[in-house]
Amino acid sequence: MSVSEEFFDQPSGTREEILAATYHALHEHGYADLTIKRIGEVFEKSPSLVYRHYEGKDELVLACLEFMLDGFEQRMTDTDLEDPRRELEAFLAWTFEAEADDDGRRFLATLVELRSQASHDDAYREHFTRSDRVFERHLTSILEAGIERDVFRECDPARVATAIVTTLSGVMFRASTHEEPNAWLEDVRAELEAYLEARVFP
Amino acid sequence: MSVSEEFFDQPSGTREEILAATYHALHEHGYADLTIKRIGEVFEKSPSLVYRHYEGKDELVLACLEFMLDGFEQRMTDTDLEDPRRELEAFLAWTFEAEADDDGRRFLATLVELRSQASHDDAYREHFTRSDRVFERHLTSILEAGIERDVFRECDPARVATAIVTTLSGVMFRASTHEEPNAWLEDVRAELEAYLEARVFP
Repeated sequence: MSVSEEFFDQPSGTREEILAATYHALHEHGYADLTIKRIGEVFEKSPSLVYRHYEGKDELVLACLEFMLDGFEQRMTDTDLEDPRRELEAFLAWTFEAEADDDGRRFLATLVELRSQASHDDAYREHFTRSDRVFERHLTSILEAGIERDVFRECDPARVATAIVTTLSGVMFRASTHEEPNAWLEDVRAELEAYLEARVFP
Repeated sequence: MSVSEEFFDQPSGTREEILAATYHALHEHGYADLTIKRIGEVFEKSPSLVYRHYEGKDELVLACLEFMLDGFEQRMTDTDLEDPRRELEAFLAWTFEAEADDDGRRFLATLVELRSQASHDDAYREHFTRSDRVFERHLTSILEAGIERDVFRECDPARVATAIVTTLSGVMFRASTHEEPNAWLEDVRAELEAYLEARVFP
């Protein structure tokens, strides 16, 4: 089961069922070809329920993104920071391993496609700004915990967090728009590790 | 005059004039709202010449992208590698300074919008894969020259080049889809410098 699907594995209530249907329709058709009709087709109850709750596809997609981000945020808030290095490495591994897997890459490519909407749509821009902040905050907490426990070097945690989030955005953006991402993904991962060795790990 | 405009400042011949008109229409309307009609309106000669040479807007946009990339490639091939550190810093400064300026940011945001087409369009994917390779090759040459002249540390030039290109892709992608890029651009630049200090500069 992919990381994304676990949020929608056991939807509770009509709203979550509609968001799960949106997620699955998005994964299957991509944003450009997504329609409310297609979401209604995936939804197991009456499609009219979808129309009754949401006005258009963007409202549904944004609600779906918010739901997933809330789930990530909840999980990250619950993270045990006893072993900051393991947490930091798990965070990086998540992106690179998702990119190395067909299903994961498709999920991340859909996220990139949705994020591209933010270049001309304020609601998407607001969502992805919040999303960046959630991930930056999580990384900052990990880095602060590591410095406090003396397992990381002194560094500017918020600045390092921003650099990591930016590099991973570049990984996802390039991987979804390049002919041969497998030719360079491991190179970028190795250099990101080298950066952390120099900057964070003692 | 912006870096992008200098390619289209003195178009020679009808083809270059058409590509210049495409560039200016793209800059003004963005990809989604671009039409051949709008390109024809910017073009100073008869719009029918545009229709006669090109079949659709994507053919024009791709020809425009190829023309600019050829220009960048030519300029990079002509780069004097006497001072590799200055060249490397100039390369990084170009992106960050373009992002700090309204006109430059609009140009890079248009490039991001066009690159997003590559997620579902093979011709765009082919172009942006070539584009990444051109920039990676240029950075690799700078790094090799620096190692040879003993002004850079021993490192894997192609791998470092890929990491830089990926980070800069992340900068452009995030900057065009985030509410407050000015809040973090300098942080990313500082961490990229710190990475180079650790990895490349002696």
